[in-house]
Amino acid sequence: MVQIEKYGHGGDLQTAEQEFGKQEWLDFSANINPLGPPETVVAKLHQELGRMIHYPDPGHRRFRHALAQKLGVPAEWLLIGNGAAECMALALQHLAVKKVGVLYPCFSEYTELSGKYGADVSGIYGAAPSYKPKREEVEALIRSSELVFIGTPNNPTGVIYSQEELLAFAEAAQAAGTWLVVDEAFLDFAEPHRQFTLLPALARFSRVLLIRSMTKMYAIPGLRLGYTLAHPDVIEGMRTKQITWSVNQLALIAGEACLAEDEYVVCTRELIKRERQHMSQFIADRLGWDVTAGEANFLLIRLPKGMSAEWMQEKLGRRGILIRSCSMYPGLAPEHIRVAVRTRVENDRLLMGFADVIEQEERSS
Amino acid sequence: MVQIEKYGHGGDLQTAEQEFGKQEWLDFSANINPLGPPETVVAKLHQELGRMIHYPDPGHRRFRHALAQKLGVPAEWLLIGNGAAECMALALQHLAVKKVGVLYPCFSEYTELSGKYGADVSGIYGAAPSYKPKREEVEALIRSSELVFIGTPNNPTGVIYSQEELLAFAEAAQAAGTWLVVDEAFLDFAEPHRQFTLLPALARFSRVLLIRSMTKMYAIPGLRLGYTLAHPDVIEGMRTKQITWSVNQLALIAGEACLAEDEYVVCTRELIKRERQHMSQFIADRLGWDVTAGEANFLLIRLPKGMSAEWMQEKLGRRGILIRSCSMYPGLAPEHIRVAVRTRVENDRLLMGFADVIEQEERSS
Repeated sequence: MVQIEKYGHGGDLQTAEQEFGKQEWLDFSANINPLGPPETVVAKLHQELGRMIHYPDPGHRRFRHALAQKLGVPAEWLLIGNGAAECMALALQHLAVKKVGVLYPCFSEYTELSGKYGADVSGIYGAAPSYKPKREEVEALIRSSELVFIGTPNNPTGVIYSQEELLAFAEAAQAAGTWLVVDEAFLDFAEPHRQFTLLPALARFSRVLLIRSMTKMYAIPGLRLGYTLAHPDVIEGMRTKQITWSVNQLALIAGEACLAEDEYVVCTRELIKRERQHMSQFIADRLGWDVTAGEANFLLIRLPKGMSAEWMQEKLGRRGILIRSCSMYPGLAPEHIRVAVRTRVENDRLLMGFADVIEQEERSS
Repeated sequence: MVQIEKYGHGGDLQTAEQEFGKQEWLDFSANINPLGPPETVVAKLHQELGRMIHYPDPGHRRFRHALAQKLGVPAEWLLIGNGAAECMALALQHLAVKKVGVLYPCFSEYTELSGKYGADVSGIYGAAPSYKPKREEVEALIRSSELVFIGTPNNPTGVIYSQEELLAFAEAAQAAGTWLVVDEAFLDFAEPHRQFTLLPALARFSRVLLIRSMTKMYAIPGLRLGYTLAHPDVIEGMRTKQITWSVNQLALIAGEACLAEDEYVVCTRELIKRERQHMSQFIADRLGWDVTAGEANFLLIRLPKGMSAEWMQEKLGRRGILIRSCSMYPGLAPEHIRVAVRTRVENDRLLMGFADVIEQEERSS
């Protein structure tokens, strides 16, 4: 059976092309804003493309200061990175921990990167449908690890942690001297009153790092742009590990332009909320499948027994639709898939694709 | 005295802006092809900008295979990186050496990166005007180090090593079990019959890594693109240390487009050769200063005693011209500067700028 997550991630159009012989995809395997980048950002990039003849600012000063102002934090609390992935890597390199804790199922880079930098990983598991481990278990993991990664909304479940939970984890981390790395890459997609974050409490928690991504909400994963919020000592330490010019010029230009796009973010959130509901309703009620809708721009689905993730991926792949198999996630089953939330027409193509695959299967059996 | 190499490199327009209060620069501090990127590359980027909504291929497959074909090597011998800097970093991370040797004066990242990854650096020095250490000294350094960096053409001298020298170094490295990292970032600018490289002999030398840059010749430093040529085991080891998606989508698109630009490379070389001669002649004959012309797209100049690099940098900075101070290079003097080779009109502005500064100085003293 084909598996297109050759590099451990969704959005690998090239492997998909090799496996399924198509070049045009309706891509539900990567969780990117289906509206595409804001028009002003695209226009700005066309206009400023010529700046690629200059080295990017190694200190990311313009963008860092603009972002700091937008977030209401001093610039010293902020590190700009080549995507959230570089931020995680720099945290691991600087903090040089040997014991990392994770909450399965979770983003595979937490374990991948820990391995790259010589740390052992232990994980705890939660139960369906939220896959959230119990709070005491998380706190115990924090006490027994040197660094713990927590995603909120978590990938691939979309499940978020409450302010109360986050504060409890931060207190536990502070008390145990454990680093707590909160991955907020998809937090932008949660409703504003549900965007729980330790940001306002960061001054109290010198052991907490928040990692965010600009590539999902603003649909610029090809450019690579993320950032870390943490105590200036941590930021400075991470900076010393960062490779000069790792963040490219166009990412910095795009990042600055994105900061003005408040309305685009609001519209995106409304779209995602409406469509997430539409999709999860269809999947649960019409198809009768288990679905964890979460609060991000993707859904975790468990196909019925006998239908593997790879099987469905291939069936849809032949129809030009890409989904993410989640069978390789520790804590999930061979039937788990993840699909991004896109626009209505696109989502309906996916949902009809599901229905069509099922119907053909029933007819042939 | 102001020093604009705040991050250790030229091309820092933002620091220059802060220090000299200008926004438009004639930039001789970064060694970038003055013709700018090939038109077809710029057009391709405008056309394909929309691909930034997709993650870059983590395996860089299309570009890697196209480049491998162009170079006549199997793709397994090739690693694509976020600039030559990432390639150097990955080599150091993978090879995990503790004793690095360098040939001063040289590119500051050799020592910077070695420090980042916990290696001690020892260096040997050569004498003016070539600043090339004796061959026996280099061989001794190879024997006493675990990894040696050699730049050819070397930055900031532009001096190249002969095929005979490179082979001797490679033999010494192979015999001693030392890694030899040859930085060929500026080799494209040397005349074809002077482009000495270990590439054809790479199969014999499992201890040799060649690192190259696409950003200088093709004038795309803002996009970040470099590569490493080495034995597949080394390449594979470096790959495992590379952060997923570190090379962005637009760099990969540009890289592929650059491979078709043979004529542009030929024209650039002719321009650089002619202008290097024009500039070095003026500097030596008319200004009477020491100049190491080398074989790359820059010149190393030693100003007369009493004129410091920073002083000249400031004088020219106020005129909108940026040069690179080399006073911080081990092995060089406070009077050393480096200037890129640009087009005739631009070069003459620099040369007239030098003459003007001197004249004003003489008048006021």
